Amino acid sequence: MSKPLRVGVAGLGVVGASLARLLQRQSEALASRTGRAIVVTAVSARDRARDRGLDLNGVAFFDDPRALAGSESIDVFVELMGGADGPAYDSVKAALNSGKPVVTANKALIAKHGLELARLAEEKGLAFAFESSVAGGVPIIKTLREGLAGNSIRRIYGILNGTCNYILSKMETDGLSFEECLKEAQRLGYAEADPTFDVGGFDTAHKLAILASLAFGTAIDAEAIHVEGIETITQDDLAAADELGFRIKLLGVAERTARGVEQRVHPTMVAKSTAIAQVMGVLNAVTIDADAVGELTLVGPGAGGDATASAVAADIVDIARGVAIQPFGRPAHMLEEVERIPMQRHEGGYYVRLMVVDRPGAMAAIATRMGERKISLESIMQKGGARLARRRTDPPPAEGAPETVRVVLITHATSEQAIREALDLALADGVVTQKPQVIRIERE
Amino acid sequence: MSKPLRVGVAGLGVVGASLARLLQRQSEALASRTGRAIVVTAVSARDRARDRGLDLNGVAFFDDPRALAGSESIDVFVELMGGADGPAYDSVKAALNSGKPVVTANKALIAKHGLELARLAEEKGLAFAFESSVAGGVPIIKTLREGLAGNSIRRIYGILNGTCNYILSKMETDGLSFEECLKEAQRLGYAEADPTFDVGGFDTAHKLAILASLAFGTAIDAEAIHVEGIETITQDDLAAADELGFRIKLLGVAERTARGVEQRVHPTMVAKSTAIAQVMGVLNAVTIDADAVGELTLVGPGAGGDATASAVAADIVDIARGVAIQPFGRPAHMLEEVERIPMQRHEGGYYVRLMVVDRPGAMAAIATRMGERKISLESIMQKGGARLARRRTDPPPAEGAPETVRVVLITHATSEQAIREALDLALADGVVTQKPQVIRIERE
Repeated sequence: MSKPLRVGVAGLGVVGASLARLLQRQSEALASRTGRAIVVTAVSARDRARDRGLDLNGVAFFDDPRALAGSESIDVFVELMGGADGPAYDSVKAALNSGKPVVTANKALIAKHGLELARLAEEKGLAFAFESSVAGGVPIIKTLREGLAGNSIRRIYGILNGTCNYILSKMETDGLSFEECLKEAQRLGYAEADPTFDVGGFDTAHKLAILASLAFGTAIDAEAIHVEGIETITQDDLAAADELGFRIKLLGVAERTARGVEQRVHPTMVAKSTAIAQVMGVLNAVTIDADAVGELTLVGPGAGGDATASAVAADIVDIARGVAIQPFGRPAHMLEEVERIPMQRHEGGYYVRLMVVDRPGAMAAIATRMGERKISLESIMQKGGARLARRRTDPPPAEGAPETVRVVLITHATSEQAIREALDLALADGVVTQKPQVIRIERE
Repeated sequence: MSKPLRVGVAGLGVVGASLARLLQRQSEALASRTGRAIVVTAVSARDRARDRGLDLNGVAFFDDPRALAGSESIDVFVELMGGADGPAYDSVKAALNSGKPVVTANKALIAKHGLELARLAEEKGLAFAFESSVAGGVPIIKTLREGLAGNSIRRIYGILNGTCNYILSKMETDGLSFEECLKEAQRLGYAEADPTFDVGGFDTAHKLAILASLAFGTAIDAEAIHVEGIETITQDDLAAADELGFRIKLLGVAERTARGVEQRVHPTMVAKSTAIAQVMGVLNAVTIDADAVGELTLVGPGAGGDATASAVAADIVDIARGVAIQPFGRPAHMLEEVERIPMQRHEGGYYVRLMVVDRPGAMAAIATRMGERKISLESIMQKGGARLARRRTDPPPAEGAPETVRVVLITHATSEQAIREALDLALADGVVTQKPQVIRIERE
């Protein structure tokens, strides 16, 4: 048996406390798996006195995580504080500079400073691991970096935010509005008081940036990601999706094309028969399209103290076993800068929900605008006339305003630019009365 | 850049040829991922002259895989011949004895000699890797051994044989019999001329034995596995499953209980809403229940040259990167021998399809036998009387034989022994006219 691996944990929130408990609970199994004891010997946290249900007897306490990171009393530094900059960044850097491998769950840190920190870790010959930063307990980073190391990956996409998936699932099963489901998510602790980071798609974007880098061997480029949230999704969209054989999911999608790498986060129509469409509630799921393996899907808990601690523990075990693969699966300096593909050039099918003026020739005018941009329609759904289509809860049209009907169009593959231009023109023509809802379709 | 890793491949069938092509196609990416070139420098195969669409110029050819295994011209030995004994076993042993790490896709070899070979590899400090032996391209072994190394696993279950899943899926979607779907599977190359190994559940059992060992840290014990195949599944069973909210899948299930480890392979009723129930066609899927991560499911191709080569390549990449974790994730000599739990002691819900004599009191007699063994029923399904229930394709009852009705029972949790005894008694009572169909229910 080698000497114990002394772990220093910065941040004793939900994940930190779960990790400390896990390492204690599994101490015997971990020792037999790694050949050495794994022991938390030092921690830092904002509030020293708070009761976390942990026995911290004999564990050194540091007020400053930077001091913990540099301390001689630990062999591995585990950063669970969060935040792209500040103490998280400083202490991770300090740990690496003082020769300690680092494990972090901090997606914002990786999305912003991952390459710089990976370079530093490689220079020093140290592990820098962040399995828990994406999809919680789902070992997606190990899968990309090691399990699929013989593959050329074409596309990776997934449900990376449990809050959004909970809300969309709840909207579908209970027929409630976005706002009502968000409130329920907040009540259950799935959503923050300020939910923008989750429901706006930004959390998904951080994670996608990390996955894209691992999948394609490209430099992390979080700013290249086109981001849309789920706030505009309505029961009308869910009903139309259902009728057309789709479900709506907030997906992060990264795809390598001949022209570069496309990265986007937006509500997406996925066929009900796909593995990703089956994923309901707070779960996460990632599908990888690759040349050798074909399609591989991982489904599991994307958040929660224990699930995230499971991934942190796996990184610590790798370190205890002496595994030190480059953080991004190849030297950080070899990660390519690739051309960003602007969203305007995205190509795919589209779902469009329009309010169309209820008069002869209106649909023809829209179809003409579509035709001018070579957009061909796969299906058109219109139910009844204006009075029929208007729901009891809709306001009646204002005095003199035209009656309108709801129309749903599904297009064959076209470009984002073409669809946006055609819809802008239809609006300008006065045959469409409000900003259309546009949802991209992702095919298997 | 370190010196090249010279790979020797024994067996150039579908997987061997796919691997050789993969290593060539990905040579640049593999070099950047591992810091060294990975090159096939020697091969062995039964037929030297056969055209495999491979450029084997400059590659040494060995008639005897044992000679290849011992040769100084390679750094890693890849065994893709198959067979639990004979040349596969001999050559793997020879490679380890001559100081070479080994990669194999051979589940029969691992199920039979895995522990002995792992011990030898550990003594020599060599990697002995077999990711491709279970679930083809799905990185389930890495996930258990590394990704979930911080977890205590309660249960692992999955669809591990694509042939069976193809047949069951096809029976369900096309309404055809087992025999018809088997023929179609043979026509498509999914099933062998002698399909027993697949449809009888034996292939699944080999894979399950490996997974159980990795999941529970127990010695491989393939002979402890209770094995049933899918040959007895009928359209009646599928229709009843559908009505009751289930699908029928051939599952391998390994579960740690207070009394030991239960290992079983049999057709299983799974709720339609589960991830595993969604997996149709030749795909494989594995679900892991563990204390920290909760539930994790991996879905992907379980067979095929490219998908299997993807897993073999991942093992080779690990070796090229210098990763050498113990084959079973802890020292082989520490794998526990645990008590086998005989199938009679299995506890769970049951689906039972009976042919019951159509006379007053018959159902009461069955219910009494169930009650005597403390079996409580969740539901009873009987449709119409004898004439209604008999299908047009059923033979009419023989002269003087009683009319019967099909009855489907779902029990609450009970023991295998109780249900078997109750049904034997009902048969002896003469109220049940033929051997009942019994299918276990697996709950999430």
